[in-house]
Amino acid sequence: MSEVEAHWITTSKHFGPEPAPGGFAVWFTGLSGSGKSTLAELLVEVLEQRGHRYELLDGDVVRTHLSKGLGFSKEDRDTNILRIGWVAERLTYHGAAAVCSAISPYREARDRVRAGIPRFVEVYTKCSVEECARRDVKGLYQKAFAGEITGFTGVDDPYEEPLEPEVVVDTERLSPRECLDIIVARLEELGYLAPAA
Amino acid sequence: MSEVEAHWITTSKHFGPEPAPGGFAVWFTGLSGSGKSTLAELLVEVLEQRGHRYELLDGDVVRTHLSKGLGFSKEDRDTNILRIGWVAERLTYHGAAAVCSAISPYREARDRVRAGIPRFVEVYTKCSVEECARRDVKGLYQKAFAGEITGFTGVDDPYEEPLEPEVVVDTERLSPRECLDIIVARLEELGYLAPAA
Repeated sequence: MSEVEAHWITTSKHFGPEPAPGGFAVWFTGLSGSGKSTLAELLVEVLEQRGHRYELLDGDVVRTHLSKGLGFSKEDRDTNILRIGWVAERLTYHGAAAVCSAISPYREARDRVRAGIPRFVEVYTKCSVEECARRDVKGLYQKAFAGEITGFTGVDDPYEEPLEPEVVVDTERLSPRECLDIIVARLEELGYLAPAA
Repeated sequence: MSEVEAHWITTSKHFGPEPAPGGFAVWFTGLSGSGKSTLAELLVEVLEQRGHRYELLDGDVVRTHLSKGLGFSKEDRDTNILRIGWVAERLTYHGAAAVCSAISPYREARDRVRAGIPRFVEVYTKCSVEECARRDVKGLYQKAFAGEITGFTGVDDPYEEPLEPEVVVDTERLSPRECLDIIVARLEELGYLAPAA
């Protein structure tokens, strides 16, 4: 065996030497139209103002980078979530706040992501299907109600509510700003985000 | 339009507020068996010793996380490379050294990755097909020569050599340690890696 061949062994150590401080993940889960992306975008504005490095991983945006070709079967949805989760895990290791926004309807997939990220904050944007449908400017819910599109979360595809999320925000009754304040307060309470100067 | 609806606008700002210092990418490209993974693994040992945060993105490993289901057509190969590149880009933004190891046979895909990463070091592991085949303990080259497997880079699938890589290492004539020294010296020269204490 040559020297090169002798070195031809794959190590299991893919990152190191130690995590950067400050990393955490905020995972928004909820129905389409429940306010995930709205709140994620408001949250990164706060992070921007406070000088905390962040990365916004929006489920739909990430699909174009990482998951083109995946559909909306349970398996494909889970694959998409685990990919976002893997990227979020690596970014938090390197000190970023990974702000993720994805319907992520299945509890098991969310919990698998949680297992890989030490400082993980699940935010459930709670909102009735009726209210989400009322807000839906693209008319997707109406099409789903009419059976014109199928596999739509909350209509003919399941959404499994989180059992013990770090934060629940009632986006049906509270304004985005009120929900944001609840989330920011929780992040401060957990010690993940320094209070405003 | 309700307050929630008025906020329902996707921002284009997905990361901020500014990059962490220290990030750079080392992109190993070359034939299967030319020494990419070997050198990538030796390089991250150096990074580990010098306390520089890193992430090793091995083409085959990343395939299991990001690109399961992709094959080896030109389009699928390019998609795999662009996904690794996207992750590397985001990690370097957050201050990591992204050490990537992938055959990445097509110049255009490599150059698209380069375009997104300010401090990008392309390392070409130069080695003849004959020598790569000689080292190949799995016998893949023999199967490719015999036509038992097709679309094998360097045999019946193209490999486009880099035109102006930051580093070329002749892995046919030099030992892994000698190649490593060349790469580390170049990273120091570029100011990306602090010399050993």
